[in-house]
Amino acid sequence: MSDKQNKNDAGEAKAITRRDADYSEWYQDVVEQADLAEHSPVRGCMVIKPYGYALWENIQKDLDARFKSKGVQNAYFPLFIPESFLKREAQHVEGFAPEVAVVTHAGGQKLDEPLVVRPTSETIMYDVFSRWIHSYRDLPLLINQWANIVRWEMRTRLFLRTTEFLWQEGHTVHATEDEADGFARQMLDVYRDFAQDMMAIPVIPGTKSDSERFAGAVRTYCIEAMMQDGKALQAGTSHMLGQNFAKAFGVKFLDADETEKFGWQTSWGVSTRLIGGLIMAHGDDKGLVMPPKLAPHQVVIVTIGTKAEERESVVTKAKEISEQLTAEGIRVKIDDRDNLRPGAKFFEWEKKGVPVRLELGPKDLAAGQVTLVRRDTSEKQSVSEEGIVDGIKDLLSQIHTNLYDRALKFREEHTLPVDDYADFKAKVEGNFVKAHWCGSAECEAKIKEETKATIRCIPFDQQQEKGKCVFCGAESSGRVIFAKAY
Amino acid sequence: MSDKQNKNDAGEAKAITRRDADYSEWYQDVVEQADLAEHSPVRGCMVIKPYGYALWENIQKDLDARFKSKGVQNAYFPLFIPESFLKREAQHVEGFAPEVAVVTHAGGQKLDEPLVVRPTSETIMYDVFSRWIHSYRDLPLLINQWANIVRWEMRTRLFLRTTEFLWQEGHTVHATEDEADGFARQMLDVYRDFAQDMMAIPVIPGTKSDSERFAGAVRTYCIEAMMQDGKALQAGTSHMLGQNFAKAFGVKFLDADETEKFGWQTSWGVSTRLIGGLIMAHGDDKGLVMPPKLAPHQVVIVTIGTKAEERESVVTKAKEISEQLTAEGIRVKIDDRDNLRPGAKFFEWEKKGVPVRLELGPKDLAAGQVTLVRRDTSEKQSVSEEGIVDGIKDLLSQIHTNLYDRALKFREEHTLPVDDYADFKAKVEGNFVKAHWCGSAECEAKIKEETKATIRCIPFDQQQEKGKCVFCGAESSGRVIFAKAY
Repeated sequence: MSDKQNKNDAGEAKAITRRDADYSEWYQDVVEQADLAEHSPVRGCMVIKPYGYALWENIQKDLDARFKSKGVQNAYFPLFIPESFLKREAQHVEGFAPEVAVVTHAGGQKLDEPLVVRPTSETIMYDVFSRWIHSYRDLPLLINQWANIVRWEMRTRLFLRTTEFLWQEGHTVHATEDEADGFARQMLDVYRDFAQDMMAIPVIPGTKSDSERFAGAVRTYCIEAMMQDGKALQAGTSHMLGQNFAKAFGVKFLDADETEKFGWQTSWGVSTRLIGGLIMAHGDDKGLVMPPKLAPHQVVIVTIGTKAEERESVVTKAKEISEQLTAEGIRVKIDDRDNLRPGAKFFEWEKKGVPVRLELGPKDLAAGQVTLVRRDTSEKQSVSEEGIVDGIKDLLSQIHTNLYDRALKFREEHTLPVDDYADFKAKVEGNFVKAHWCGSAECEAKIKEETKATIRCIPFDQQQEKGKCVFCGAESSGRVIFAKAY
Repeated sequence: MSDKQNKNDAGEAKAITRRDADYSEWYQDVVEQADLAEHSPVRGCMVIKPYGYALWENIQKDLDARFKSKGVQNAYFPLFIPESFLKREAQHVEGFAPEVAVVTHAGGQKLDEPLVVRPTSETIMYDVFSRWIHSYRDLPLLINQWANIVRWEMRTRLFLRTTEFLWQEGHTVHATEDEADGFARQMLDVYRDFAQDMMAIPVIPGTKSDSERFAGAVRTYCIEAMMQDGKALQAGTSHMLGQNFAKAFGVKFLDADETEKFGWQTSWGVSTRLIGGLIMAHGDDKGLVMPPKLAPHQVVIVTIGTKAEERESVVTKAKEISEQLTAEGIRVKIDDRDNLRPGAKFFEWEKKGVPVRLELGPKDLAAGQVTLVRRDTSEKQSVSEEGIVDGIKDLLSQIHTNLYDRALKFREEHTLPVDDYADFKAKVEGNFVKAHWCGSAECEAKIKEETKATIRCIPFDQQQEKGKCVFCGAESSGRVIFAKAY
């Protein structure tokens, strides 16, 4: 019965694979050793461990407040969707049917109609919306849901692609096309600002090509981030659904002009995938690097000192400092474990990416100072006791800026304008390639087939520039971003 | 394609059935008309509407902070459980197997092993725990999860019994039996305090009889509340699991004495069912009555005045007052809709149970005062502008106390000591009956069969008192609480 042999030996620290040796192994090592998540006994599903979940809670809390400030209200819709609902919007079912999990039996009996475990909730929500909305006075309807989602995946990677994941999905109905499109873009801008301001990740907002847009949407807006291997990660999407679903589900309203009209809809979401992006944008060979604004612990106070009488005064002082910082809204963890040497404790919190380490030992106590160590640069500094709060606030802000600037610099260095297909093929590995594209799905498909690179987006800030499609040579009016993607 | 005929006509207010006419209809009317939730197109599943979900968010927020203050950390485990896991603990599978939903197909293929949609997460979590725990230093392990749960139900009622519901489930592992049992009781006390302090619902903490305990537990602790029809609602449970699951899943640790031992475990949970309890404990014939500490809107400011020039100054003042109250941490909603008459607005917020209504019209403005109306007693008072903040704080606190006291008085009036079985049968409808019980499962089962009443709990404060079992006449050392239950 014992499965001891499968147990991790948590006592022994494994080395983290270097990024340049094997980026994919490095990622897996960081997720595991930073204690964020692990594979579960259920194929493709993950266990989000407390440290990883605390990060997700911080993401949720901030995003939720941003949504609410836009007038969005949270609600909750069923996990199960009748199979027939999925089929009502033709493109939608085509996109999702191959990857759904299906409940066929329940309560000991075969079900009359199989139930699909939600891969996204457009269909179940809009059927309900059709009964909530009667008049233009009921609009806009702005709903969000925090939920678990299931999409059957063959090859899974923790956070990046799992059979079950957590996300939020916003769903809105508007009276006019302009208002809906504006709202979809507004929500994308919420994601853009969140990525930059909270995650310290620069992103490129833009529009997806038709081949890459959401199944059932008229237009998909997205933000794309660059990881440290030069690949793209789609960090959030916002869809202008037009009236496609409204027509399929009867989402209608009586307008002020007394005529009945179909609503204009949007949906938008981000998921636990953001955590994968955060790891790959900032992590280094020592492990995770948490962006300060989302870090579960912004500061870890590590006590040093092994003698019993020293220990007590050090721990007392650690608590005192922790209280001061907490009062200023800073999230603090005290590590006063006495069964580990300081080096082992430093090593652990480095792997977990805590932005600032505060070292506190008997000598510091005597000198009325502490040592602060930045996770991003490993720089050390001594700070007098009175200067701790300001010093740490300052450091957290500097770290945020440094992470953002570093990621932006990296992206800029790895974004290359390319005008020739041979050059394209040579450069698209590890870079964002800005190339002209004629707009045809055929060229796009062939490029993907030959290089595995896809159009990540047509950036909002695309410049009008005459050129020739990098694949077929036909006319183009601007460059789009190609890259390999997660 | 149109399903217009099924649409609710939200424009027309239906009357709420009176409690004494049909309590069950009254409940359904309140849930619907207070806009808390509705039945979904998926059999047995509910849609939690924004107002109901906002209440759930307030419940979550407060409970979550209470759990964290006990050292509990949140995490997330898979929705799916391999069917074989459920079978490892004999009583557990017996309890849950009949009501699970089963995924048999996914990604277009039949699965090798069917997956059960979690009806509770002991089995999936403890399999993982067995790999997390190595030494006594890893204990206690204190984990909580906020999640959706599926139990196939034949007869469903919104919030009270639905196929899918939302809950939290805490799961802990301890080194000793005493510590585990103490923790299970500590968490029950968290629930007791939450029910009383936040929901204004008095509850009776106690132990379940063996027949009523959780499938796989050694002992189940519970809090029982009385609804206004005299029936009981189990509002929260905390289970001492002993080593049952630890042995089935290999949850072992190396103790300080260098011997390997099985862990001692607990699990505990509350769900969206609490909302059903809240409705039935406090609601009246006008609709919902929200306990102030959990109310999404604690105060609704209703503007009065139809002339355009009056309207503007009234709305400006409403915003000013709202800002003042918000700054004091009070949750405020302004209802300045001009397409409804004041009476219609009052009616709507009464149905939704907002604790305090603040009426503000041109006359109030001129007199430098406002009118405050309590939802619980309908009492009105005029308050000068300067007195608004203090007046409202005071009212909210009075309402909380009044709701609690009212519910407690009701329960006391409907709790009857009974010594005779004929008397028992006559009184158990609509009351808690305190009766002697010999401790045999047989008497318990026969009483249930004949009266539909069950032992709600053996209260912690049970007094030692010699008596005779109300059913068989055998010796008993104390009274237990019998009632019909939701």
